[in-house]
Amino acid sequence: MSAEKFDAVDIIGIKRDRGTLTPDQIDWTIDAYTRGAIADEQMAALNMAILLNGMSREEISRWTLAMINSGERMDFSGLGKPTSDKHSTGGVGDKITLPLAPLVAVFGVAVPQLSGRGLGHTGGTLDKLEAIPGWQAALTNDALMAQLRDVGAVICAAGAGLAPADKKLYSLRDVTGTVEAIPLIASSIMSKKIAEGTGSLVLDVKVGSGAFMKDEARARELAETMVALGKDAGVNTVALLTDMSTPLGLTAGNAIEVQESVDVLAGGGPEDVVELTLALAREMLTAAGQPDADPEAALKDGRAMDVWRRMISAQGGDPDAALPVARESETIYAPADGVLVELDALSVGVAAWRLGAGRARKEDAVQAGAGVVMHAKPGATVRAGEPLMTLLTDTPEKFDRAREALADAVVVAPEGSRPARKLIIDRIS
Amino acid sequence: MSAEKFDAVDIIGIKRDRGTLTPDQIDWTIDAYTRGAIADEQMAALNMAILLNGMSREEISRWTLAMINSGERMDFSGLGKPTSDKHSTGGVGDKITLPLAPLVAVFGVAVPQLSGRGLGHTGGTLDKLEAIPGWQAALTNDALMAQLRDVGAVICAAGAGLAPADKKLYSLRDVTGTVEAIPLIASSIMSKKIAEGTGSLVLDVKVGSGAFMKDEARARELAETMVALGKDAGVNTVALLTDMSTPLGLTAGNAIEVQESVDVLAGGGPEDVVELTLALAREMLTAAGQPDADPEAALKDGRAMDVWRRMISAQGGDPDAALPVARESETIYAPADGVLVELDALSVGVAAWRLGAGRARKEDAVQAGAGVVMHAKPGATVRAGEPLMTLLTDTPEKFDRAREALADAVVVAPEGSRPARKLIIDRIS
Repeated sequence: MSAEKFDAVDIIGIKRDRGTLTPDQIDWTIDAYTRGAIADEQMAALNMAILLNGMSREEISRWTLAMINSGERMDFSGLGKPTSDKHSTGGVGDKITLPLAPLVAVFGVAVPQLSGRGLGHTGGTLDKLEAIPGWQAALTNDALMAQLRDVGAVICAAGAGLAPADKKLYSLRDVTGTVEAIPLIASSIMSKKIAEGTGSLVLDVKVGSGAFMKDEARARELAETMVALGKDAGVNTVALLTDMSTPLGLTAGNAIEVQESVDVLAGGGPEDVVELTLALAREMLTAAGQPDADPEAALKDGRAMDVWRRMISAQGGDPDAALPVARESETIYAPADGVLVELDALSVGVAAWRLGAGRARKEDAVQAGAGVVMHAKPGATVRAGEPLMTLLTDTPEKFDRAREALADAVVVAPEGSRPARKLIIDRIS
Repeated sequence: MSAEKFDAVDIIGIKRDRGTLTPDQIDWTIDAYTRGAIADEQMAALNMAILLNGMSREEISRWTLAMINSGERMDFSGLGKPTSDKHSTGGVGDKITLPLAPLVAVFGVAVPQLSGRGLGHTGGTLDKLEAIPGWQAALTNDALMAQLRDVGAVICAAGAGLAPADKKLYSLRDVTGTVEAIPLIASSIMSKKIAEGTGSLVLDVKVGSGAFMKDEARARELAETMVALGKDAGVNTVALLTDMSTPLGLTAGNAIEVQESVDVLAGGGPEDVVELTLALAREMLTAAGQPDADPEAALKDGRAMDVWRRMISAQGGDPDAALPVARESETIYAPADGVLVELDALSVGVAAWRLGAGRARKEDAVQAGAGVVMHAKPGATVRAGEPLMTLLTDTPEKFDRAREALADAVVVAPEGSRPARKLIIDRIS
């Protein structure tokens, strides 16, 4: 007999047979897996049983807590100001974090935005900011704290010490077909966000072709699960359900998304990016006790831009430096006269990824200048032969596969047609 | 991109989402797992998806074929006589193979009985025969063929070359809570039996507390699945569903089960062991084209015993040697006057196992003399204080835990009660 408190095969059997794990069993499972006392193949079988048979709210909550407890937990209580954070489940052209973090910080709410890199067709926030010459993603905890105090906004890499169980589990789920289990997605996101120590949290849960969740019912279930987990952990949490059937804004890439973000901070930028940035800013400010703040004014009058410039500078970046430009470009033209009713998010995301903006494996590098610039969005009237998109890359051999990805991306309908799109679908609190 | 034909994550996703794998996908899965191109954690997730979502008949049949094709396939076509084999899903006191193989061989039907060792509460045929001084379980393929030709019956260890995919998969299922998937159980058993090259096959599918399948519906599903797999592979296959709520015969152990088998071969032995031996012998003989053979006569007149003696001698055993006897014994007494209506198979099996007759881990040794001798079976009238069972072991510190296993094993009811037990529940062909 080993000295282990439980046996992995028994734990697997409970979920296989639609039973409920006790808090003790969940704590042991996460701890034993982190220590290596539960083997990968055992955890994989357990994950599949959880995916197919589900978990109760109480189980998910404890699972999340156990993952938080597998590592360090940050503490911003000594900061002297409220903290608020945002998490997006990931979409194409989703650069919202870039204008949002400095915008919220304008009002004295600290934004500790610990982010990741992209994998697959959705870009990564750190990949985008690394297009800015000099900018560094890695910060020590002390530097993070100082920047939060002095500037108010930080976007940096999450340290390896946060929820290490989640890191190990996520890698396993990725190769075992068990990514799409709502209890596991929700606990993965929330364990990291809660370990980061934010006082309040706003979730942007995407729905549509370019999102992880393709249908609204599952996105809603995920949002509700995460909001409940946040409340269980004492973090004021709200979720917006937002459309990801078409890309956000007019750019999908790295440098080009930074430029679009700077446009928004300068009071301009695409309407949908501004709308979502303001909606999320209002949620974060309200959650942090500032319901009367006016973020729209802070975009118009340059206060958000000031924080942005200080935030970029604090991490070694030059906010005035020219951004990298791709060496090669090709144009996609409108196929007919009419109204652009569809510009598919997944297709654009895959095209940008294939052009070099994203990576297929963790160890790949990304091209700062690569991506897709869109010249029209759904609802716009287009004329046959007019440019619809510009493809950008340093490596022209990539154009063909990017064009393939876009083969069915565009639908032009007779004039008078109107695409149905509501950017913010619902609010869940 | 790797040169693999499919991606393991896609294969897992198909079964996770209740889809059907193509023959090509199944062939690749088994081959890739055997080669190590599918990792254990991926196969574990796939197994759990199969356990929870099931597999079609066609999928199970192809899965079985792919496992057969992972290794060598024996061929007895040059033997000049029909072959027939029996497989039991395992039970307590199930020594039927020992008298059955020589009994069937009496009629010129060759019996290549490739067997395993026990793990857990059910004993292993090889463990039992190894109680006979000098007897060797390992045979080369040539020796096996020669013995089948000369003696007609062989009980020996299955070589490592048969269905190696099954060997690897079974070890994985054992530690990942995925043993109890009917498609995987059926394909595991049948891939080995079909690879062994028998012309016909009789399955003894046990139902009840001491069996792997506790309830009749699942046992029936397993039996039907295996019979269909046999037919798909061109092996004439029949299954009997038989009771395993109480042990077979009056012994559960190694040497004591050999002795009981010899009693049967001498024309005596417990009624239920004789009944099941004859029923299975008739099925095997009919399947091998000898419906008019009279196995009962061959037990009475010593012909089966003659084959037994030659079979044991051919593998180095001395059929006349005294069998090992346990050094220590303890008695369990009847708790009341009345009719013994229950003598629980699982409890007796666990007691025998704990006394040293079985092993907890593959590398453990077993005690030849250990086990449980029963002095009454359900239906018998008993008197309070009269011996019900004798516990045997070389290591008396084991008595306590064996007694614990037997704490609820016995039910004595007022006289006139009758236990409901039908040994042969059904026949599935």
